[in-house]
Amino acid sequence: MKKTNINTFTLFGLNNSIAILRSKTFKIINIDLMEDGRALKEKKIKILIENKKINKMKKYQFNQKYPEKRSQGIAVTFSGDIIRKEIPSFHNQENACLLVLDQIEDPQNFGQIIRTAECAGIDGIVFPRHHSAPINETVLQVSQGAFVNMPIYEITNIRNIFKQFKSDGFWLIGIENSIDAKPWFKVEYGGKAVIVLGSEGKGIRKMVLESCDFKSTIPMKGKINSLNVSATASAILFERLRQLEGN
Amino acid sequence: MKKTNINTFTLFGLNNSIAILRSKTFKIINIDLMEDGRALKEKKIKILIENKKINKMKKYQFNQKYPEKRSQGIAVTFSGDIIRKEIPSFHNQENACLLVLDQIEDPQNFGQIIRTAECAGIDGIVFPRHHSAPINETVLQVSQGAFVNMPIYEITNIRNIFKQFKSDGFWLIGIENSIDAKPWFKVEYGGKAVIVLGSEGKGIRKMVLESCDFKSTIPMKGKINSLNVSATASAILFERLRQLEGN
Repeated sequence: MKKTNINTFTLFGLNNSIAILRSKTFKIINIDLMEDGRALKEKKIKILIENKKINKMKKYQFNQKYPEKRSQGIAVTFSGDIIRKEIPSFHNQENACLLVLDQIEDPQNFGQIIRTAECAGIDGIVFPRHHSAPINETVLQVSQGAFVNMPIYEITNIRNIFKQFKSDGFWLIGIENSIDAKPWFKVEYGGKAVIVLGSEGKGIRKMVLESCDFKSTIPMKGKINSLNVSATASAILFERLRQLEGN
Repeated sequence: MKKTNINTFTLFGLNNSIAILRSKTFKIINIDLMEDGRALKEKKIKILIENKKINKMKKYQFNQKYPEKRSQGIAVTFSGDIIRKEIPSFHNQENACLLVLDQIEDPQNFGQIIRTAECAGIDGIVFPRHHSAPINETVLQVSQGAFVNMPIYEITNIRNIFKQFKSDGFWLIGIENSIDAKPWFKVEYGGKAVIVLGSEGKGIRKMVLESCDFKSTIPMKGKINSLNVSATASAILFERLRQLEGN
């Protein structure tokens, strides 16, 4: 489906480092640790770095190399495939939820959505290769390790994927403020649902929206009328969980 | 209650600029505009800058001064009070919702929460002066103009404020993962509710949590167990709206 995407990344902080070190998917290239830093005091880290080559650094050296406030005294360099190659069939599953990000351009938003989706038990994130933020260190850093457990798929033809989803029994739900959109809590996200979110400025592309079975919107209560797409994702994904678990 | 907080800020982008220029609260000091830029093509901007002193800049000059990708060709420098001085009494209101941010340290999260709160029709945001992110340009920039319409109160003594809230008839709801916390959708946020969110790493301080009438939690479905506080805010605030409007 796509070329193998091997890259080298350096991420810092406890959440990212623990997720990467626990995973067996990635090749650990280097672990920088600050002497007497927060990370070296963490039991989880101590266990995870046993028998691994680590590079202890003086505080001033570490801070020079990683001037981020939230480094927590650890940075891990690793390589491996972040993006998975083929979307599996969900034909035999009763419940599943995938998120399609239609041209999200802001890496902060992309990373936050990965993080929120992982916390909300989503089964995968799909994004078109063109006009999307590439999976870079900012995206991964912001995801706080969630990218390790969240299948992420890059696609070239969104129409073909939608066909595959429909034949797998998914409903396609576009989150968009249009005339025929229902309030977000009146749409059912149970069973097999694909939730489509559009880009920050432009929303979902017309031809993508037209392929959706339902449209769902969050009406705004303020004067700004501009909910961030990652905040939208959170509201929708936890409304889905409420429907599954709650009333 | 606190000293007057007059400051000068420069914010860029259409959302921020439109909100600031529309407001009568702030003193506009300067408006930088990029020649042939996005902002100068916007009708709303054209109307708002009529009879105002503007500073047109060549593209390369503007981009040198504002290297942010999302400047959209406009940056507004203004001064005024962002923080309001006294929390009004809500005694005679039937419905109201305030957000207390207990020591949110990340300006990105602070700004995102202001933005989400404005979209969700929240009546005000309260934060303790100590150990919180100060209201700086990052916070305001990220809020995308929401700070103009969202009353923000800085307080020194959270206990005293809670007493005031209780005597005004508010229920205090702490969002925290503790044993006696109910799932977020089983807590009622209608009527008069104060929703308390804790800091990114440490959660709500013990003495603050103990003052809450109810505790509400969002159980995590993934392996990371770390929902961003602004994503938490979004899930809770739109659950509140669902309860008010929906079922």
